[in-house]
Amino acid sequence: MKTIYFLSDFGNGDVYAGVCRAIIANKAPEAKLIDLAHDLPVGEITHAAYQVYAALPYLKTDGVILAVVDPGVGGDRRGLIVRGNRYWYVVPDNGLLSLAMELDTPIEAWELDPAKYVGKSTSATFHGRDVFAPAAALLAAGFPASQLGHKVSVDSLIRIGPKIVRGFEGEILTFDRFGNAITNLRPKEKPEAVHVVGRRIPFARTFSDVPYGKALAYLGSSGLVEIAVHGGSAQEAFRLLPGAAVSLQAPEKEPPPLITD
Amino acid sequence: MKTIYFLSDFGNGDVYAGVCRAIIANKAPEAKLIDLAHDLPVGEITHAAYQVYAALPYLKTDGVILAVVDPGVGGDRRGLIVRGNRYWYVVPDNGLLSLAMELDTPIEAWELDPAKYVGKSTSATFHGRDVFAPAAALLAAGFPASQLGHKVSVDSLIRIGPKIVRGFEGEILTFDRFGNAITNLRPKEKPEAVHVVGRRIPFARTFSDVPYGKALAYLGSSGLVEIAVHGGSAQEAFRLLPGAAVSLQAPEKEPPPLITD
Amino acid sequence: MKTIYFLSDFGNGDVYAGVCRAIIANKAPEAKLIDLAHDLPVGEITHAAYQVYAALPYLKTDGVILAVVDPGVGGDRRGLIVRGNRYWYVVPDNGLLSLAMELDTPIEAWELDPAKYVGKSTSATFHGRDVFAPAAALLAAGFPASQLGHKVSVDSLIRIGPKIVRGFEGEILTFDRFGNAITNLRPKEKPEAVHVVGRRIPFARTFSDVPYGKALAYLGSSGLVEIAVHGGSAQEAFRLLPGAAVSLQAPEKEPPPLITD
Repeated sequence: MKTIYFLSDFGNGDVYAGVCRAIIANKAPEAKLIDLAHDLPVGEITHAAYQVYAALPYLKTDGVILAVVDPGVGGDRRGLIVRGNRYWYVVPDNGLLSLAMELDTPIEAWELDPAKYVGKSTSATFHGRDVFAPAAALLAAGFPASQLGHKVSVDSLIRIGPKIVRGFEGEILTFDRFGNAITNLRPKEKPEAVHVVGRRIPFARTFSDVPYGKALAYLGSSGLVEIAVHGGSAQEAFRLLPGAAVSLQAPEKEPPPLITD
Repeated sequence: MKTIYFLSDFGNGDVYAGVCRAIIANKAPEAKLIDLAHDLPVGEITHAAYQVYAALPYLKTDGVILAVVDPGVGGDRRGLIVRGNRYWYVVPDNGLLSLAMELDTPIEAWELDPAKYVGKSTSATFHGRDVFAPAAALLAAGFPASQLGHKVSVDSLIRIGPKIVRGFEGEILTFDRFGNAITNLRPKEKPEAVHVVGRRIPFARTFSDVPYGKALAYLGSSGLVEIAVHGGSAQEAFRLLPGAAVSLQAPEKEPPPLITD
Repeated sequence: MKTIYFLSDFGNGDVYAGVCRAIIANKAPEAKLIDLAHDLPVGEITHAAYQVYAALPYLKTDGVILAVVDPGVGGDRRGLIVRGNRYWYVVPDNGLLSLAMELDTPIEAWELDPAKYVGKSTSATFHGRDVFAPAAALLAAGFPASQLGHKVSVDSLIRIGPKIVRGFEGEILTFDRFGNAITNLRPKEKPEAVHVVGRRIPFARTFSDVPYGKALAYLGSSGLVEIAVHGGSAQEAFRLLPGAAVSLQAPEKEPPPLITD
């Protein structure tokens, strides 16, 4: 029995996420369900894609990631099951896995065919309940993906937004609740500083390495460069927006030692 | 062992809901607890009543719905156990079940008598913890309702707000986090359009059937007419309020075929 | 297997709390995990300390309270395991247990040494994931605290903010989502009224004992004096701030009976 990891932008002020939980418990009573987050910003796919990327290394191999941020619900975007090297995914085909695919190579994919597993009547506006949650539950309970949909090419999956960059020039992906900016930069060595919106922000190890109220850049918990203000919000302090250009200043190299012999 | 479905307006910034979960785990360790939602708008009974209505068809028969939106806590409103045709409910008697009762006929009801099951000391301001959660847990664990309270007439239950309407004239019940307006209209056939606050909004199947930024009405996931803006908030765009009148425009009937024979 | 009770200021818009849940499920699959709250106000230690205090009496003896509100993450504040008389705690050493310690005397404490149990690489900004959640899981799974850190004196634990006061002069600790002010006053007898920001607020039993829109003070569900507005927010109505002075007006004593014999 697989573990299901569930994240969405359904919020906690309506029963949307709760009803999906109920359906999973009905269809896969033995499956363990772990809520990853449900107050994801409405319809923001890049934020959600980063959340999947950030969570991935800590999830149980063979787990099912059920991710529903789905502004195109009911339209012609496909619903998917994706089998990666390590995990399974049940998602709308809108780019949600763009960053996760850099950590977990997609091997096979199926377009969900709800007629195969939930009958003919699905709402046109709540596929979380009628399409995705039932598929994740059945998958966790051992149903083969081929009984839930038909095979499609993994190359056909939609990818959006910036990729993770190993170099010096990148951009802001999104923000967390603390107002820390998360970039797409995964540096090979610790930079000297970060440049963003015309400012130079020194690189440090953690918040308290700079005085309270001062900005810092640092290697965030997902391995990406982040920008923060100690005790404050970098997003607010510098009016940062997703997509803002960020560049890393390489560390000063030691000059080569003088050979005096 | 019954499943408990828990929703409240306790939020997630205080431990109110968490303490109720802890109590349920203490008193009914084997019961499955599913959180439906805890950021329901504070004290808004109609919103909460709609949430119960929306969740109901997806819950396990014989489950216990623990719903705590309780602005009258500690006053003379009663605490109730209600046995419906399919589910059990543990709720303050303030109208929370007004809409659910249209789906699940109440058969029996008991006024909770906490002295019977939690002893004499209950706080006057947190019955979620001291009255309702313990009752739901004990009910799930198999205690008969008659040991938790005394029988009252199901006709005495308080009902509030609009009923579900099968006709053409209704109103806005509430909104979801996406700003979609949910009405009390459950039409027998697909209407042509919806009229609200002086506007005519065309009926469609889902958001992407209209251009980005345009309004639509559609049959929502609970079977009720909803009003949305594709990629936006109908609530904000049209400054809609709960209770606003909504009327459906019937589809144009085909004129009867000319009999030419 | 111990129950883990988890609260944090990680919010539900990022996967921070969810990843901690995933790690706990990996390391202690049999442990029961109960979320107490995750939208605690960012970095507000006194609010969090009150939440632990409020929850404590309802938790299972021997349970592990995992509380992560950690503005000093990565700096030189210690990570701790504390064994109290009734419960275990896994927390940053920043005062989070200041109020809980009044209910549950700390007996032993250990400074977490992640190198002992998670290897060398921990992020400098997300100890919830890399230090605290693994420690709580291992503790729940039966690992002795001594394998997770080294003994420190319980007298060395940081304590902050106001203590609980049995007398008449205190202050506002924090607010709940309803805008009710929670004070540090635990009176021996019911006072006549409360004075705050130049106002006299009568003492009552519950909200509905005063007219809608009127203020009241009352004994809150944690045994502390609270100040509310029936159907409103005392925090907003009186522009209250944490730390505002509050004094109780003692009940009028009956004059001693005249001895006429």
